[in-house]
Amino acid sequence: MPTYRIDLAYDGTGFHGYARQNNVRTVQGDLETALFRITGDVKTIVAGRTDGGVHAVGQVVSFSVDAPLDTRRLQRSLNGQLGPEIAVSGVAEVGGDFHARFSATGRRYRYRIWNRPVLDPLTARTTWHIPEPLDVGAMDGTVGWFVGVHDFASLCRKAPGRTTVREVLDARWIRSGDIVELSISAVAFCHQMVRSIVTVSVDAGKGRSRPEDVPVILAARSRDVVRGLAPPHGLTLMAVTYDEAEPGTVPSWVVL
Amino acid sequence: MPTYRIDLAYDGTGFHGYARQNNVRTVQGDLETALFRITGDVKTIVAGRTDGGVHAVGQVVSFSVDAPLDTRRLQRSLNGQLGPEIAVSGVAEVGGDFHARFSATGRRYRYRIWNRPVLDPLTARTTWHIPEPLDVGAMDGTVGWFVGVHDFASLCRKAPGRTTVREVLDARWIRSGDIVELSISAVAFCHQMVRSIVTVSVDAGKGRSRPEDVPVILAARSRDVVRGLAPPHGLTLMAVTYDEAEPGTVPSWVVL
Repeated sequence: MPTYRIDLAYDGTGFHGYARQNNVRTVQGDLETALFRITGDVKTIVAGRTDGGVHAVGQVVSFSVDAPLDTRRLQRSLNGQLGPEIAVSGVAEVGGDFHARFSATGRRYRYRIWNRPVLDPLTARTTWHIPEPLDVGAMDGTVGWFVGVHDFASLCRKAPGRTTVREVLDARWIRSGDIVELSISAVAFCHQMVRSIVTVSVDAGKGRSRPEDVPVILAARSRDVVRGLAPPHGLTLMAVTYDEAEPGTVPSWVVL
Repeated sequence: MPTYRIDLAYDGTGFHGYARQNNVRTVQGDLETALFRITGDVKTIVAGRTDGGVHAVGQVVSFSVDAPLDTRRLQRSLNGQLGPEIAVSGVAEVGGDFHARFSATGRRYRYRIWNRPVLDPLTARTTWHIPEPLDVGAMDGTVGWFVGVHDFASLCRKAPGRTTVREVLDARWIRSGDIVELSISAVAFCHQMVRSIVTVSVDAGKGRSRPEDVPVILAARSRDVVRGLAPPHGLTLMAVTYDEAEPGTVPSWVVL
């Protein structure tokens, strides 16, 4: 069966997250409705199921169909139906064993904070407004402790029977002007993990905790040690990476 | 009477422009409703009346009241009522002769184009999407011809009995990555002038006209020579300047 990869971006503001749900607007719902007009019934696989309000620049979706498709026409038709909130930046035929989720070898997210006393209406949809000064050095020191393989049970919404062990590949907080930004990549993230890491970082940035508290937080393996969840609209899925050499294989170290 | 200056920013997407109108949402309407709760009935003056969909980073409003106000409390109260689409970045007491519109000595606007085949959902509210390649050198050469004192009748929506002579102080198109951006300042602009200049620029950027056509366009003194109007959502009022030495005076060369 011919298999296709779709790269897409979206403004998550108006969606109840990526994953299809009954009676509410979702990215998957809009995408599959648009695809249905072209391909008939089709089942799509997504690399990263983003929550309500979370944005994407480099989301990846895969699906298989019975008969070959014209990729340029498919892209044009999807963009005509889905814009301006969803944009398809590429459509490509891939090997039959390509799986947007299981073939992925890494995900990178960005989290943006608008760090000035007064908010900025033009970035309000994509940044968390924190008026108090933030110690970005302390925030960067905090996320350094998360790099490597750890049990992130304190920072994940529980999924019964699933491991909460993940490998964070890198994580940096930097300031550029009034924007304070986290870039973080991992093989895979568990649910709500990035927004919990932001919460812990901001606590340190406000001087309420220290970077060295992270090992204690991780060791607790309980969500009670992390207060609240950073709001979704500061978060954007930037990129999903695949092993270019063997795009269809599932590396054994991917945490499913 | 104590007189105040308010600096504000807004995302123009949800507003039918700045100026108050009956039965539709406007920036002035929201602002005066919020002010009314604090000061009672008040008449505000604005530096630049932006059209529906146009944004602002540095809009300026002035008003006078009978009794002095606590500027910090006023700012906090306005931001509590108006966010996140409108933000008040500053409130200051000014001289009684300060007039947001007549005291202004210059206005600066930005116009942004997203110049890639596929649009970007996260900048779609603030950029005009033009998929075809643009010759930014030709666009920059085009706006160079508008600098100076000219009759902009070909580029302005007519206001009976008002002059269409304006002085453009500087105008530049530059590319940074996928964004092509105009920065333009003038003592004052007439209605729809910047968006008409963008239309003429984009014609040159697509090779449909040449920079040297501008003198012919100006000489025509007719809107028939400019086809269409660039969409409002790419436009942002960036700053209004005042003569710092004498903030309350109206320079004789301001075109009212």
